[in-house]
Amino acid sequence: MTPQRRTRGEARREQIIDEALKAFADNGYRSASIAEIAERCGLSQPGLLHYFPNKAALLAAVLEYRDRLDYDRFGFDRNLRGKAALQKMVQLVEHNEHVPGLVQLFTVVTSEAVTVDHPARDWVVNRYRLLQAYLVKVLEDGIADGEFRPDINTAAHARQIFAMMDGLQLQWLLDPEHVDMPALFRTYIDELIASIS
Amino acid sequence: MTPQRRTRGEARREQIIDEALKAFADNGYRSASIAEIAERCGLSQPGLLHYFPNKAALLAAVLEYRDRLDYDRFGFDRNLRGKAALQKMVQLVEHNEHVPGLVQLFTVVTSEAVTVDHPARDWVVNRYRLLQAYLVKVLEDGIADGEFRPDINTAAHARQIFAMMDGLQLQWLLDPEHVDMPALFRTYIDELIASIS
Repeated sequence: MTPQRRTRGEARREQIIDEALKAFADNGYRSASIAEIAERCGLSQPGLLHYFPNKAALLAAVLEYRDRLDYDRFGFDRNLRGKAALQKMVQLVEHNEHVPGLVQLFTVVTSEAVTVDHPARDWVVNRYRLLQAYLVKVLEDGIADGEFRPDINTAAHARQIFAMMDGLQLQWLLDPEHVDMPALFRTYIDELIASIS
Repeated sequence: MTPQRRTRGEARREQIIDEALKAFADNGYRSASIAEIAERCGLSQPGLLHYFPNKAALLAAVLEYRDRLDYDRFGFDRNLRGKAALQKMVQLVEHNEHVPGLVQLFTVVTSEAVTVDHPARDWVVNRYRLLQAYLVKVLEDGIADGEFRPDINTAAHARQIFAMMDGLQLQWLLDPEHVDMPALFRTYIDELIASIS
């Protein structure tokens, strides 16, 4: 949408999503307080609930926003195949180093989602299934193009790639001075490409 | 300690730790309620606080208990070197499949620890540093014994191994029907050993 057509209500929604994202990343979803998010937006609690009827709806909006950012930047570009797609993932991790708040939101909410009755669980499970399907396709394209050996286990490698990405994010968030997340992911992908080529 | 010498107070402490572990795994540390843990133990809240002065002290006891279990089972056996130590880690992951509650506690608390002012942060950061030092040593022993090539990046492989373990745990907790955690970790380690030998 063009800036001209952005209404005051839309600007307010964006502000609320932005503050909610910070609150969920800082405290986790369960401990984040609607009252505090409202206050940071200069709104009363009923004022905020006019835009989002409850905390779960606000979380859904935050996750949708994060997905859109990822999609815009990473693109899950359907034209990328094999090695080129894996190298694009390395670029995504390099980019992630510059958006620690978004990475923290993802790490905190994804892990919190394993707890009982969490409103993000379906989103998280579905997200992994989509990523898994995307990456299996990328690896199969690489086989079809003759880049990768036909006998590789595409399903296993797909899961392992996401696991490595998530695990390195956690170590980096905990100890950024000692963990060079992009370099560690890059060497993993380079060695994987070498071993499956 | 022998069962005979286990006092009523010690039995009570163990019961509280057991219920707290379940509560932290189910809801996360921040959202877990001391009142509810006390109730499950048949104690009043002041009765529980007689054993553990606050929620952070209870978390520390739970993490120490979990570490002791891991140490007893996994052993971080100082006699294991190179390949044998990596294969022992595969056995640990195979074992973890049978203790989902402990895995969930670890995943939930470790990720929650990246949030602001979390009482487990130092424990988690220190744990990764110890594991990192242990695994670098294991890989260096493998080089010294001629099992692994001398030019491998031991620090990077050490971090990647933990990242893979953590990332697969998360996917398995979210979607146990579709994620064969031990098989995925085993193939990762087998391929790693093949590539660094």
